[in-house]
Amino acid sequence: MIEALINGVRPGDLGHALAAADRGLHYGDGLFETMLLAQGRVPLLEAHLQRLMLGCARLSLSCPGLALLRHEIQQVCGDASDGVVKLMLTRGVGGRGYAPAAAPSITRMIALYPPAAPQPFELKLGWCSTRLGRNTQLAGVKHLSRLEQVLAQMDIATTGVDEGLMLDSAGELISAVSSNVFLVRDRALLTPDLRHCGVRGVMRGQVLRIASEAGITVHEGALRTEDVRSAEEVFLTNAVHGLRAVVALDEQRWEVGPTTLRLHAELQHQIGKAG
Amino acid sequence: MIEALINGVRPGDLGHALAAADRGLHYGDGLFETMLLAQGRVPLLEAHLQRLMLGCARLSLSCPGLALLRHEIQQVCGDASDGVVKLMLTRGVGGRGYAPAAAPSITRMIALYPPAAPQPFELKLGWCSTRLGRNTQLAGVKHLSRLEQVLAQMDIATTGVDEGLMLDSAGELISAVSSNVFLVRDRALLTPDLRHCGVRGVMRGQVLRIASEAGITVHEGALRTEDVRSAEEVFLTNAVHGLRAVVALDEQRWEVGPTTLRLHAELQHQIGKAG
Repeated sequence: MIEALINGVRPGDLGHALAAADRGLHYGDGLFETMLLAQGRVPLLEAHLQRLMLGCARLSLSCPGLALLRHEIQQVCGDASDGVVKLMLTRGVGGRGYAPAAAPSITRMIALYPPAAPQPFELKLGWCSTRLGRNTQLAGVKHLSRLEQVLAQMDIATTGVDEGLMLDSAGELISAVSSNVFLVRDRALLTPDLRHCGVRGVMRGQVLRIASEAGITVHEGALRTEDVRSAEEVFLTNAVHGLRAVVALDEQRWEVGPTTLRLHAELQHQIGKAG
Repeated sequence: MIEALINGVRPGDLGHALAAADRGLHYGDGLFETMLLAQGRVPLLEAHLQRLMLGCARLSLSCPGLALLRHEIQQVCGDASDGVVKLMLTRGVGGRGYAPAAAPSITRMIALYPPAAPQPFELKLGWCSTRLGRNTQLAGVKHLSRLEQVLAQMDIATTGVDEGLMLDSAGELISAVSSNVFLVRDRALLTPDLRHCGVRGVMRGQVLRIASEAGITVHEGALRTEDVRSAEEVFLTNAVHGLRAVVALDEQRWEVGPTTLRLHAELQHQIGKAG
């Protein structure tokens, strides 16, 4: 973390910045967005803010004004050209116990991180043994209770793969640990509908929109491991690394296919370096 | 929070006590214990520390020495007679991304809270609409990713009930929001086995042990809503409030039964005020 604004204030010491009683810490009671800063701008800022608002509605968390958030993001980025911006909202300082205060004072933290280590365009994947629990209220939301993702990332830490695919507790394909997943089969684009769990990624939304505009048939639905095995192309998306092709999963190999390349080119065209 | 020790140090300002980059905040990546302080002692301290160690093993988190934790709990409690002690461990300060550092420096926080508001011995319950996601790795563990419990508590906030019962995503009975649940039927004690989710409560463990010693048949297994409906007695347990009888759930009513009273008396005898 290079620097941060917490409730609009630059803390004197990032090591002593947050209240010991913050509900984000005690209960994972909050939301976050991870955004790319590229050439001095955040290309998908409005889409991130829209998802944040949807998450606030889902958690009954009162969302700070978007103009304030935009302003503070600019403040934190300052003259920086490239990096990653993390925006976090929590249900503020609370007492002991799960029940929130009637009108909690939301904690907001906006932090700038160095640019992410570059990822290859061609990714090797493995399967995580950790499964995602199903919770329709939290499905799609980028919330702070992310221990499943931590365990999943540890599953693949020493395997040499670039990313790990995750199933939910009922065996449906959901996503990679930090990315959404897309399959191509019979010229159609398939992606999990995330009705039970997973994060509805901002870059996922961009790809779905671009694919529709390009006349590609899109199916959001329930997918399983056999759908991955029978896919002609596989790719991942997230806000920091854009769209990347999957070329290997365990023993299976894929070429980088035409739909992947076409969507990647269109994304780069539309949002610049984010692709 | 009355006061706290963070990594052995009393922070000058509880409002600026924690690192902005702590993984407990960013990912719910940690564990906690909530312990009763009664008449100057923590009656189930060793059982709490044992569960904490099991949780550390499950999350691959290196557990601080128990002698250090015991000492710091004593320090925080000081001369206080009654209250609630919360012990929290997180995977420390980290960079961006789910992958933990190779040898993270664990954050430990031990905090003293005022005594809990007294609960009646006879509880009225409702059902929470929020379901618990299944994750066998996290089942039983008291970890920091607790947004499901926050939402569940909000489900019942305005309903006037004392506690809410929760099912998992597959419809199995798991627990109440902050308590474990027991049923009595045909003189046997039934409780969810928590193989998919839920917290393996310290007071639950005490009750199971006491019931076995008293010659009561105990079944830990899969229970459903119809098991609650056909139960002759229902009671809840947690470390702060001990054992409490359930006398109402929606339209159903129970008397406080003999097994509930017997186990409650035996608990009080064994652990003093915790019952």
